[in-house]
Amino acid sequence: MGIRETAMIMKQEAPLMAFRSGEEKNNALRAVAEALRGQKEEIFRANKEDLERAEKEGVPVQIRKRLAMDAKKLEGVCDGIEALISLPDPVGKVSLHRELDKGLVLRRISCPIGVIGVIFEARPDALVQISSLCIKSGNTAILKGGKETASTNSTLYRIIHEAGTGAGLPEHFLELAQTHSEIDELLKCDREVDLLIPRGSNRFVRYIMEHTNIPVMGHSDGICHIYVDRKADPEIALQVITDAKTQYPVACNTVETVLADREIADTFLPLLAGAMKRAGVRIHADDETLEILRRGCPEETAAEFIRIEEADYHTEYGDLDLSVKVVEDTARAAEHINRYGSHHTDAIITEDDAAAAFFMRMVDSAGVYRNVSTRFADGFRYGFGAEVGISTGKLHARGPVGLEGLVTYKYELTGNGQIVGDYASGRSSFHFREIDI
Amino acid sequence: MGIRETAMIMKQEAPLMAFRSGEEKNNALRAVAEALRGQKEEIFRANKEDLERAEKEGVPVQIRKRLAMDAKKLEGVCDGIEALISLPDPVGKVSLHRELDKGLVLRRISCPIGVIGVIFEARPDALVQISSLCIKSGNTAILKGGKETASTNSTLYRIIHEAGTGAGLPEHFLELAQTHSEIDELLKCDREVDLLIPRGSNRFVRYIMEHTNIPVMGHSDGICHIYVDRKADPEIALQVITDAKTQYPVACNTVETVLADREIADTFLPLLAGAMKRAGVRIHADDETLEILRRGCPEETAAEFIRIEEADYHTEYGDLDLSVKVVEDTARAAEHINRYGSHHTDAIITEDDAAAAFFMRMVDSAGVYRNVSTRFADGFRYGFGAEVGISTGKLHARGPVGLEGLVTYKYELTGNGQIVGDYASGRSSFHFREIDI
Repeated sequence: MGIRETAMIMKQEAPLMAFRSGEEKNNALRAVAEALRGQKEEIFRANKEDLERAEKEGVPVQIRKRLAMDAKKLEGVCDGIEALISLPDPVGKVSLHRELDKGLVLRRISCPIGVIGVIFEARPDALVQISSLCIKSGNTAILKGGKETASTNSTLYRIIHEAGTGAGLPEHFLELAQTHSEIDELLKCDREVDLLIPRGSNRFVRYIMEHTNIPVMGHSDGICHIYVDRKADPEIALQVITDAKTQYPVACNTVETVLADREIADTFLPLLAGAMKRAGVRIHADDETLEILRRGCPEETAAEFIRIEEADYHTEYGDLDLSVKVVEDTARAAEHINRYGSHHTDAIITEDDAAAAFFMRMVDSAGVYRNVSTRFADGFRYGFGAEVGISTGKLHARGPVGLEGLVTYKYELTGNGQIVGDYASGRSSFHFREIDI
Repeated sequence: MGIRETAMIMKQEAPLMAFRSGEEKNNALRAVAEALRGQKEEIFRANKEDLERAEKEGVPVQIRKRLAMDAKKLEGVCDGIEALISLPDPVGKVSLHRELDKGLVLRRISCPIGVIGVIFEARPDALVQISSLCIKSGNTAILKGGKETASTNSTLYRIIHEAGTGAGLPEHFLELAQTHSEIDELLKCDREVDLLIPRGSNRFVRYIMEHTNIPVMGHSDGICHIYVDRKADPEIALQVITDAKTQYPVACNTVETVLADREIADTFLPLLAGAMKRAGVRIHADDETLEILRRGCPEETAAEFIRIEEADYHTEYGDLDLSVKVVEDTARAAEHINRYGSHHTDAIITEDDAAAAFFMRMVDSAGVYRNVSTRFADGFRYGFGAEVGISTGKLHARGPVGLEGLVTYKYELTGNGQIVGDYASGRSSFHFREIDI
């Protein structure tokens, strides 16, 4: 069966999945966690096959680390499932309840999105994480993993599918696409698939976004900034920048550019250069900024700076590299961020309330921070319990996306024969009375 | 200046527009309504030019009616602006306020989407309506109207722009694209334009959706259904169907297909045929349904039925035509609707609570109704005060879209130097405490 036929069946079955009770979904999640723990040896065996093949094929060791599914990662995803069980059911929440006229009652009620296509490179733990999020939110999902973890993926899929259907979920609540050509087929299923969630490299996510008419939730770039204002506490600035750059350099919420207010550039930039040198971070800067940096730094530090052009400020290094630039003021900082950033997460370091408020208004990003590391942009750290991903789109869900991002709503209107003709002619009229939810 | 350069400037100015206070925006709206009323003669003069040109070019009279901007329509849009002024400001609402740890506070706060591209055919009143919605929601907008109303559009634009900037809105809060080629240029501005709202024919909206990577809010099809259950009150069924079909046949929320439960088909279908004949509605049906219809109807009525195939049930007539089909039960009705409908608005007629609940769960549409006309699917009738349009997409906004659909949110995180390293190492930990909003 092709992916489109599968998707069509899922579309028809989606309403059956949609209104499983919270208890049924939690039971299924419990069964999934138990089955994963009970069949862990099979998972590790399948993963070993994948890792050995990857080694033979010369896959670099850092990537092989991401392919691994060891006891610690498995325990992590099972803990995640238990955290998910403890969260309230996101489906069936009434967000509007209004009597339009006597006997004519409108309700807006949350419901699953329907059929979700999940496409991920490497990271088999993402398969488990997103499958459980889809179960909790009542969505059906088609999974497409990378070929590097084909054995691990099909073992995980089989275990989750067995446990889920065993606990009473519909036969087609979860499907796994097996061959690579199916990605392109999946991208064309815009009548069957309601949402795509890609997880992987920037290039991979961008490819998905550019080759489908299905809505895509995610982010391709993470070009985050920290602006050091004239009223910044330099100690806070250095500790926040060091954390945001070095705590996990490949993450999308890592800082890529530090902007410094010209008024404090002469004193602050040499301090920054020293701290970055100690942390093993290479500094990239334009001519103007380099001049200030060089004036204040010892020669051997200055020799290591890398000269860049204006356009290079649109770079996501994903490594121990940092762009630095001097700007006139908070307004220019916001302008630079809105132009060169990726609308992900940007911070100001300042003790000045007015500057902070201005910055947080002017910067058009999912996260606007004051005096904290950009690395906090994460569903777990926001207290969402679980995370689908981080969205840099502005519609539907923005920033770290939890279960709320996997539901939509429908309007239910009930009456006893009301017709619009009576309201158009003036025989009836609306009175709009809110009803307690 | 090309449309992309204009859009880039608007993108930079959008944050200036974004945080105008509710009062500033209401003052601007008041100035706009006053200016429109004060300069109505100019508007009518420009509209007369357009109408005369259209007549010369042989534009059909029904379309010329939609091009007209007369005293009644102008008063209507000005009343609409006043209704908008009375609504609460949708920007700056806090929907989440949480202390993640001591001194580390997260807020989710509503904000405008940014730069909105509005593309509309004919209907100059839509220009005024959407411009005022954008002002109220703090968005900047690029307008592209049809060439048929070029004079009216540029007059309306000039008046709104003068009044808005006169009341202190930023210079580029509203722009008008003048030439036709600019549509295709606008569709490519996916880095500058955050959302497109097309208003016009199905074909027009579908063209926009298929030719851009910018998110599009709207609907191309409106294939609405009414299912008459075995426990239906036939009187309610007939009055609701007649209203839903004839009250305004070209509207997107008009019923296109009536499904009848096989158990009551023999008695109900002849009644329906009679009522439709009196209302001037042509009935289209498949062989099986035709047989039942013919058995119960006088010969001269039966002679007028039109035979259709299964695939024809995916038809939006937009005229006094109605597809009719017999189905086994509520589940088959929902299946038919999910397959052939457009996920807009669908109704069940029944006195049976269980059947109604089942139908409303299984039907995957923005509006699921019981015992009322599908024509109620409308922002004004839902009490939203103003309507951007109706969305058949499932993400962001679904169904009739009011001001809420024109805002997104951002996360603000404030602290005093917190770094992720401390939480990763276990030195600090989150305590997640909700703060009153």
